Amino acid sequence: MRELTVDLGDRSYPIYFGEGLIQQAGQLFTKHGITSKSPLLIVTDEHVAPHYLSNLESAFAASGYRTASYIVPAGEKSKSLSQLEEIVTVALEAGLDRSSTVIALGGGVVGDLAGFVAASYMRGVKFVQIPTTILAHDSSVGGKVGVNHVLAKNIIGAFHQPEMVLYDLNTLRSLPYREIVAGLSEMIKHGLIWDAEFIAWLDEHTQHLLTLEPEALSYGLYQGCNVKSIVVSRDERENDLRAILNLGHTIGHALEAVSGYNELLHGEAISIGMVGSAKLAVHLGYDASIYHETKRILSKFGLPTQIPTHLNVDQIMNAMMHDKKFKEGSMVFVVPIAIGQVEILKDVSAQLVRQVVMELKEDV
Amino acid sequence: MRELTVDLGDRSYPIYFGEGLIQQAGQLFTKHGITSKSPLLIVTDEHVAPHYLSNLESAFAASGYRTASYIVPAGEKSKSLSQLEEIVTVALEAGLDRSSTVIALGGGVVGDLAGFVAASYMRGVKFVQIPTTILAHDSSVGGKVGVNHVLAKNIIGAFHQPEMVLYDLNTLRSLPYREIVAGLSEMIKHGLIWDAEFIAWLDEHTQHLLTLEPEALSYGLYQGCNVKSIVVSRDERENDLRAILNLGHTIGHALEAVSGYNELLHGEAISIGMVGSAKLAVHLGYDASIYHETKRILSKFGLPTQIPTHLNVDQIMNAMMHDKKFKEGSMVFVVPIAIGQVEILKDVSAQLVRQVVMELKEDV
Ligand SMILES: NC(=O)c1ccc[n+]([C@@H]2O[C@H](COP(=O)([O-])OP(=O)(O)OC[C@H]3O[C@@H](n4cnc5c(N)ncnc54)[C@H](O)[C@@H]3O)[C@@H](O)[C@H]2O)c1
Ligand SMILES: NC(=O)c1ccc[n+]([C@@H]2O[C@H](COP(=O)([O-])OP(=O)(O)OC[C@H]3O[C@@H](n4cnc5c(N)ncnc54)[C@H](O)[C@@H]3O)[C@@H](O)[C@H]2O)c1
Ligand SMILES: [Zn+2]
Ligand SMILES: [Zn+2]
Repeated sequence: MRELTVDLGDRSYPIYFGEGLIQQAGQLFTKHGITSKSPLLIVTDEHVAPHYLSNLESAFAASGYRTASYIVPAGEKSKSLSQLEEIVTVALEAGLDRSSTVIALGGGVVGDLAGFVAASYMRGVKFVQIPTTILAHDSSVGGKVGVNHVLAKNIIGAFHQPEMVLYDLNTLRSLPYREIVAGLSEMIKHGLIWDAEFIAWLDEHTQHLLTLEPEALSYGLYQGCNVKSIVVSRDERENDLRAILNLGHTIGHALEAVSGYNELLHGEAISIGMVGSAKLAVHLGYDASIYHETKRILSKFGLPTQIPTHLNVDQIMNAMMHDKKFKEGSMVFVVPIAIGQVEILKDVSAQLVRQVVMELKEDV
Repeated sequence: MRELTVDLGDRSYPIYFGEGLIQQAGQLFTKHGITSKSPLLIVTDEHVAPHYLSNLESAFAASGYRTASYIVPAGEKSKSLSQLEEIVTVALEAGLDRSSTVIALGGGVVGDLAGFVAASYMRGVKFVQIPTTILAHDSSVGGKVGVNHVLAKNIIGAFHQPEMVLYDLNTLRSLPYREIVAGLSEMIKHGLIWDAEFIAWLDEHTQHLLTLEPEALSYGLYQGCNVKSIVVSRDERENDLRAILNLGHTIGHALEAVSGYNELLHGEAISIGMVGSAKLAVHLGYDASIYHETKRILSKFGLPTQIPTHLNVDQIMNAMMHDKKFKEGSMVFVVPIAIGQVEILKDVSAQLVRQVVMELKEDV
């Protein structure tokens, strides 16, 4: 079992990486002083529940914990205030009190939703994440929780750090292959923004990761969380440094919006976005190898590096301008200046971004 | 203009008490460094808006602030997730960003709702309260914000301290008399739990307060906020001391629940509850004068001191047991041990409480 401490003063917490952690959940809760006097609430989704919910419930029961469970439909739509309201109904009926803990068993959707329940139920109760996707290594560090509004994603939420995170590698075996690949995109991002050695390691272990080889998976998730954790520790409330985590996200979010959130997975969209940022870097005079390396490593993982040809450049530009409310003609952009190093550039010309978007579509 | 600082380290904030503060709102915002680059959002209710909204909007406009406004129906029902969602729609349409401020113009309902919007919009923006009821002197200190769920009041929320509070005494002139009296009940509570001198002052200035004489009103609100502020500063997250603020609330909440939340105002219900606590004190061996004094001062303000005869004792007891999930046969109770001093007793017998409830009904 690997362990990482996310260092946030009196809100610090451990992330455990290992096989079979679900079976040990009850013991780990006891070890961390989580009371069995108050009931626990497990939030999960309909894809995850059939595989792991009853195991988790049994593990808790064996350690003397009472649990209630709630299963949301799979997918982004469940990050809503109406799901929050439903979950609070269940919490009240199960008698959750201020000493209770809310548990997210699932990917980033369940994590964000259950985390916001934990942040707001009785003005805040304990929260534990049991992530079941690779992408959720990203969402399990940083404490951002929340739900969507019809007009904007992640707009209603809080900062609420978990008590701990249990990353049971076995749960990833049931994850669809496309979700595995998309999740690795954020892992590669963590290398690209901070850690050239990690990129070299990812390059060497591509196949081990794609086949979920436990030792490689454990280290990759650990190191991905580690990079995010370092960044978040230095800027918990997103005042400056934390923005580097948005590498690839400006273009990526625009692509998700324009393609209607069903064509591209988030990790796929930001893969294209990261290639775009690397292209931008080269246009701004940085070494051409940044672009070639970024593109090579993402392609090696089977991630897309090109904008689907049917998407419209004007619409993509509009989505970007709207999303971030850029000032006339200039944009804030996270740009790689070497592999493993980025800078936040405050006034990249929108014209240049447009050119990059066009090139990304034509793959030149 | 009086000023009080609520002392919470780097979350400290001022409360201003004075006549005509709404007209000065723009200047006060500028003085406190609130940017005019980002739009403000004013949340108010349909009783308050016709009197004060356009004045407030003009004051902001005169100081170069852009504002959007949203008017909720008056009453407790507006403390809901669906109102939150509506307000977020308005916020997004008005272009509120992370540097924006949400303003509550109204009583405790608007304060709790708008405060939770501020706590959760983009994971937290600035919040300013402009209370328009006397009861809201209580809700403007302590940072508790939130909404109701059909099954439980105030169950979804956050701790979110305001940037400042502008108590414009002029707004209280349009408040219905019954609301004035009910609001004074919480002011008396602040005396009863902490400050015998303040009780003596309240005794002397009863008429001045009931007629909203500005100097008395200003001092009474100031001192009420001051007591709450001292308690909250010592226990911001409600771990122990803060519970003394619940004097009268255990019985009071039960009365509100049993009478269906439309017969008794909150201040009226806790007035009866405070008399109950004083009765309990006497049964526990404390001086009989505690009961007589408590009852006398509340009556002098025209507050009820007796349970309406048609309410059922069993139902009241059930509501109490359910509300606080008391352990078998014993209850936690805030009990006055002198005028201006209370204790939290951990195992008051439910039987004794039942007797007190019966006596409160028969007014013996
Ligand atoms: N809070 C943060 O800091 C943060 C960071 C990144 C992403 N996010 C959020 O995370 C969400 C995306 O996360 P995600 O990609 O994990 O999405 P997800 O939770 O929707 O999971 C993806 C899909 O895989 C299924 N699934 C999950 N685990 C499975 C398993 N073990 N076996 C089989 N199927 C499984 C899910 O049901 C879903 O269909 C977005 O809402 C995004 O906003 C949040
Ligand atoms: N957050 C806290 O710490 C805290 C503390 C105490 C109470 N509260 C909450 O406060 C709420 C009760 O507050 P309240 O008594 O102010 O209720 P309220 O906001 O509903 O106001 C009472 C009534 O007076 C009207 N009104 C308000 N100001 C007026 C004015 N100046 N002129 C004319 N009419 C006016 C309102 O429209 C309403 O009909 C409850 O929801 C309670 O839970 C919160
Ligand atoms: Zn992302
Ligand atoms: Zn009260």
